Order: sequence, then C-alpha cells, then structure tokens
Amino acid sequence: MSAFQSGYAARAELLTIGDEILTGRTVNTNAAYLARKLTLLGFVVKRITVVEDGQAQISQAITEALSREIELLVVTGGLGPTYDDVTMESVAVALSRKMKKDEQAAVWVGGSVAREGQQMTPERLKMAYLPEGAKPLQNPVGMAVGAWIELGEGKTQRIVVLPGVPSEMEAMFEHHVVPVLAREQSLFLAEKEFKVLGIYEASLAPFVRQLVSQDELLYVKTHPRLEAGKPSMLVHVEYASQSKQKAQDSVEAASLLIQREVERLGGKVES
Amino acid sequence: MSAFQSGYAARAELLTIGDEILTGRTVNTNAAYLARKLTLLGFVVKRITVVEDGQAQISQAITEALSREIELLVVTGGLGPTYDDVTMESVAVALSRKMKKDEQAAVWVGGSVAREGQQMTPERLKMAYLPEGAKPLQNPVGMAVGAWIELGEGKTQRIVVLPGVPSEMEAMFEHHVVPVLAREQSLFLAEKEFKVLGIYEASLAPFVRQLVSQDELLYVKTHPRLEAGKPSMLVHVEYASQSKQKAQDSVEAASLLIQREVERLGGKVES
Repeated sequence: MSAFQSGYAARAELLTIGDEILTGRTVNTNAAYLARKLTLLGFVVKRITVVEDGQAQISQAITEALSREIELLVVTGGLGPTYDDVTMESVAVALSRKMKKDEQAAVWVGGSVAREGQQMTPERLKMAYLPEGAKPLQNPVGMAVGAWIELGEGKTQRIVVLPGVPSEMEAMFEHHVVPVLAREQSLFLAEKEFKVLGIYEASLAPFVRQLVSQDELLYVKTHPRLEAGKPSMLVHVEYASQSKQKAQDSVEAASLLIQREVERLGGKVES
Repeated sequence: MSAFQSGYAARAELLTIGDEILTGRTVNTNAAYLARKLTLLGFVVKRITVVEDGQAQISQAITEALSREIELLVVTGGLGPTYDDVTMESVAVALSRKMKKDEQAAVWVGGSVAREGQQMTPERLKMAYLPEGAKPLQNPVGMAVGAWIELGEGKTQRIVVLPGVPSEMEAMFEHHVVPVLAREQSLFLAEKEFKVLGIYEASLAPFVRQLVSQDELLYVKTHPRLEAGKPSMLVHVEYASQSKQKAQDSVEAASLLIQREVERLGGKVES
C-alpha cells in the first residue's frame, strides 16, 4: 500500500556532505531541489543535515538519521575520486558493511575514464567501490557512481547516495529514484518542456512563484540559457497526481498560463 | 584568548527552523549567509540542521547541538506572532528554563506595533517572551525580538536566536553579533559600499565569484535593485583581518578591481 493510499506520509531526511556549504561558499540548492521533489512525491522531509567531508561526521549523521523513524535517507556529495571524498566509505561504516568493488560500477567508471581520454588510476577505481549489498546507480552526466541500499528484513528503510554536482545529482534522481518512488506512491507524473525566447528568467519568476504557490503538486523549473547573446530558457512543468488525467490536464493548464505570461512580457514560446 | 590567537578555531552550528525549507519552497540562503560570515570571523561551522516548526523537533535539535563540542549555536526562524512560531519556547524547553516576559522587549514590540498603526494582541505580546536569563536583541527592521543566551558557568557556550526573514536576520546579525565576535576573535572588519548602475547582478557575478575564491577572508555581496526600470545594485565589500591596515587595504583593492570590471562591462560606479 502506498503512503498516499494509506493516508500515511512517508518520512524522509536529507544529508548534504560538503565543506563548501559549511563555509557558505555554496548555497544548498541540492537540498532544496530534493525537498521539493520528495514533497511532490508525497514524502514529508523531516530534517536536512549538512556535515563536512569527514568519515566520522558522515557516519555519525547517518546513524542518527536512521535511528529516527524515516523511510528514506538521501545522501548527496563526496563521491568523487579525491582523498576527501569519503561518503561511500562512511555509509559502509554506519551500516557495519564492508566496501566491495562492484563489477558493474567498475565497467561504468572504466567507460567514463576512456571516453574522457583519461587513464584509470586507483583514485578513479575507488568510485566503483560500494558498501556490500548496494545497488549501483549509473551516472549519465559524470563519472561518480551512486548507490541504492535497502535496509532491514522488510526493507523498511532505504538510503540513496548521489553525487554533489547538481546536474549529476538531478539527472540521477530523475532517472533512478523518481520512477520507483512515484510507482510505490501510486502517483502519475506528467511533464512538459518548452523553450522561451527573449525574456530573462527573473522577469518570469514572480509569475511562476505565484502559480506554484497555488498548487502544492505543481512543479515548475526554469533553466536559463544565453543564445547568441540573447536570453532564453527551458521551462519544465511537472505535476504529480494519482489520476493520470488530472496530472496531464494540470500540466497543460499550467503551461498555457506560463506561455500567456511569456507573451504578455514580450517573449516568444517555442515548443 | 581569542580563537585566532590560540590557534584554535571556535566551533559553531546553525539551526534553521522552517517548513518552507523542508518542502523545498525556499532555498536556505540564511544558512549560507551565516556560514560565510562566521567563517570570515574565524569560526568553523561544523553542522547545519533544518527542522520543522515544531517544539519537540526544535528542542531536540538544540539539545543535540549543545551536546556536541561547540561554542556557538545560531538559531534562525520561528519568532513571529503566529501559533506555529515556537522557536523561543523550544529554546526554553531545551535549556530547562522558564519563559518570561522581557520588559525591554515588550517596549520594542509595543513601539513596532504602534508605528505600524496596529493594536497590541496576545499574539504580538508573545514576541516579548524570552527564555529566562536571555538578553533581548532589538530588531531594527521588523517586529520579532531576538535573543542572546550565555550558557554554563564559564560561559563556554552561547545561543543566538534570530528571525527567519533574511533582511531582519542579516541586520540583527550585523548589528548585535558581528561586533562582539570580531572583538573576541581580535579581528578588525573593514567594509565599503558602492553603487553600480547599468549592469545586471548576473553579469558581474562570475568576476565576483572568482575574486572571492582567491581570498578566504574577502566577502562581497551584491544587492540587486531596479531603478526607473534600469538595473542597479549595491555592492558590499568586507574583509576580516587581525591587522586593521591589511583589512582596509584589502577592501580598497577588491573594490577597485570590481569597479574596473563594472566599467569594462559598460556599467557605471557611483560612490
């Protein structure tokens, strides 16, 4: 039975790894992205924690999170090849599991290394080591491999580990995580993308903000670009509902409203 | 002895209260601001935690933070007049202190209420109640009162409680907290502000990002505005150093570089 059907919202926590957040160099947009997506998928995000790239700190934060009654923990950051990328190892320590080379992950890392014309090194091969029992998650954008770990006999808790680079994290979350969670929650996700020319993201932002504030299940993201020195953006509209019809209709209605506003602002819509 | 002098970096944690962060409606820019400022002031920010507006959750997070070896905990959000603003009460519970009406705070709240032509209500008066022993912190921008609490005999830990509205939080942090921490850390803070006309914040951003990445102690913030339909922004440059001369020279040098870039981009600087 899904959380939606049972009337019980599944509980999630986010753990962000990274010194750059703790020194204020970077705003934690990864957590905002994941919190928004998980909320739309019917989860209640109970806590967000940020800790530094240190094995003891990460393992401790994971142990604490799992001790609270949550169904899902999403960990981001610290999956790269350098010595201070210790997230996978920290997950293994928290779960008292061994680190093990995953053959599938090794093939993916090898492929990425070859495509970029690089040499395989022990540091790069490290990215193919996962906690025992973890399912590897392929990275379509970068080199680091993610992990999906089911805990307990009845699979009552799961951990998803993703890279900290936003484009990689988002692509992997969309591809590996969203479909599974949506299916489990009996949700249908409708989406639509269109291109907007001639206006800046900031000009459209107030309208989008107001629009999404009217419906908890509506998700709109604008990706600004610059083409030949002129502003353009990709607008992504998404709606989650247990009714396929409702999801599709809502995406169409929201897209139309946005497109009208684009035209009112003097911009052009390209489908 | 300051942390700088002793070669020991004081440890801080941030606790952000707010459902809007946990649902991804809002990005946690408050934590980024505080993390950056505290880093410049010589602190190591060890952890950032976000929890919802619930007394049990907030008290629990405060108790956990204080149990770790930190010198400073900054709590933001949940200080307003509505029923779900329970941060001060949660601080009191975590510290096993009673809530008490602070006469000074009551005068400030009364003044704000009168200035805005409003009536005093029990909900508004609630904002004058602080944990026993707390020092009230005046809010120059809004109505909610902050708190400064010293813990323990040797005052080894302190909690600073600030509102969640960024403009209020920043003004109160700058006014009440930065001078005390800078003095304790034997740091001199130099700053300079100037206005830029005719270019967008996003155009200047890459240069600023690169500039601050070269010096840990340099802080630059741009505040975008729109004047008569044209872009303008206020640029704030800050440098923290134990040497007053070094701080002042660094602010001047960084300002000059930014101003040159502004002119290169076709903008105008106004002092």
